Amino acid sequence: MIVLNDLIHLKSHLRSHWIDITDKVQAVVSRSGIIEGICTVVCLHTTASITVNENADPDVEKDFFKMLEQLIPINASFRHVEGNSDSHIKASLTGLSAQIPVSGGRLVLGTWQSVYFCEFDGPRSRKVSVTVMGQ
Amino acid sequence: MIVLNDLIHLKSHLRSHWIDITDKVQAVVSRSGIIEGICTVVCLHTTASITVNENADPDVEKDFFKMLEQLIPINASFRHVEGNSDSHIKASLTGLSAQIPVSGGRLVLGTWQSVYFCEFDGPRSRKVSVTVMGQ
Amino acid sequence: MIVLNDLIHLKSHLRSHWIDITDKVQAVVSRSGIIEGICTVVCLHTTASITVNENADPDVEKDFFKMLEQLIPINASFRHVEGNSDSHIKASLTGLSAQIPVSGGRLVLGTWQSVYFCEFDGPRSRKVSVTVMGQ
Repeated sequence: MIVLNDLIHLKSHLRSHWIDITDKVQAVVSRSGIIEGICTVVCLHTTASITVNENADPDVEKDFFKMLEQLIPINASFRHVEGNSDSHIKASLTGLSAQIPVSGGRLVLGTWQSVYFCEFDGPRSRKVSVTVMGQ
Repeated sequence: MIVLNDLIHLKSHLRSHWIDITDKVQAVVSRSGIIEGICTVVCLHTTASITVNENADPDVEKDFFKMLEQLIPINASFRHVEGNSDSHIKASLTGLSAQIPVSGGRLVLGTWQSVYFCEFDGPRSRKVSVTVMGQ
Repeated sequence: MIVLNDLIHLKSHLRSHWIDITDKVQAVVSRSGIIEGICTVVCLHTTASITVNENADPDVEKDFFKMLEQLIPINASFRHVEGNSDSHIKASLTGLSAQIPVSGGRLVLGTWQSVYFCEFDGPRSRKVSVTVMGQ
């Protein structure tokens, strides 16, 4: 069995947007030499998250962040004084990690799927953990 | 160590409903021969998801999809022109994958838990990836 | 390869709150002897969940549960007669499991991250499954 833990470094450039990290995650899988296994992508922050969604139409991203802002407005009545309570809640709702199977040395993704880092409190420097386990 | 990657094929029959796939997932676990490990169930689409929830009262499913429809209405003001922006958002909120421990060759689930494929843009033919890893 | 499946037993004391289980999860990791791998934390109930979020300011917890209650009120028009339809929906939205990498024998968590059991229908006695896999 092989286990490879690695880090991806990112810079977000807006308060809320997503960044396609599929190629960076695939690079870690390729470096691991693992042919069959699981890749686990984990956000190491509490105001950002990881999801898998459509990579074809950029409007999906715009609809996604606009709807989240409507559901959990930045200026709702919050107690936490840092002005990012909405970001913490959006992070837990969209999920801190993603699992992608690895087969034939490649991430197993559907035709339209990419792996996204979701920024909810940018712009910031961010770290994503990638662990590949398999054989 | 053993790794088995397999696919489950499904047909959804409504725009929004869930399908209990616990038996199909257990069948992959049994075929793998793995006694102790982890099973990872991943949706390969961007308008559907995987969750674990109650299998006893069918009203839980009805309440679940009705509340999601109230929160993220199909006809909200979206830019994506395919009419399924709500489905993309519901998919990321409910989660693209589930992890279920395997012990004694069986999925470790609570008394009332089943594994569900959540359709948000059916009816469609769908694929779910199941990876079992362990020994 | 080593696989260790274990259980954490908890008692929640309110209808809705979270419980920091990071130390209990780390104890399972330490007992496993695994240096590099993945830890999977799974909720075995359908009205509770697992998330990772901030451990510094207790107001984050209060904002989190208040916002979820606003989005999915306990007394919305539900069919399920047990009075906890909101809890089932909140569980699926916040997620039944979390994955945390293990490196150097320690959970890989960001500076402000803790692993939380989220109770949405307490007070109750609860069980959380912890599986550590690696070498």
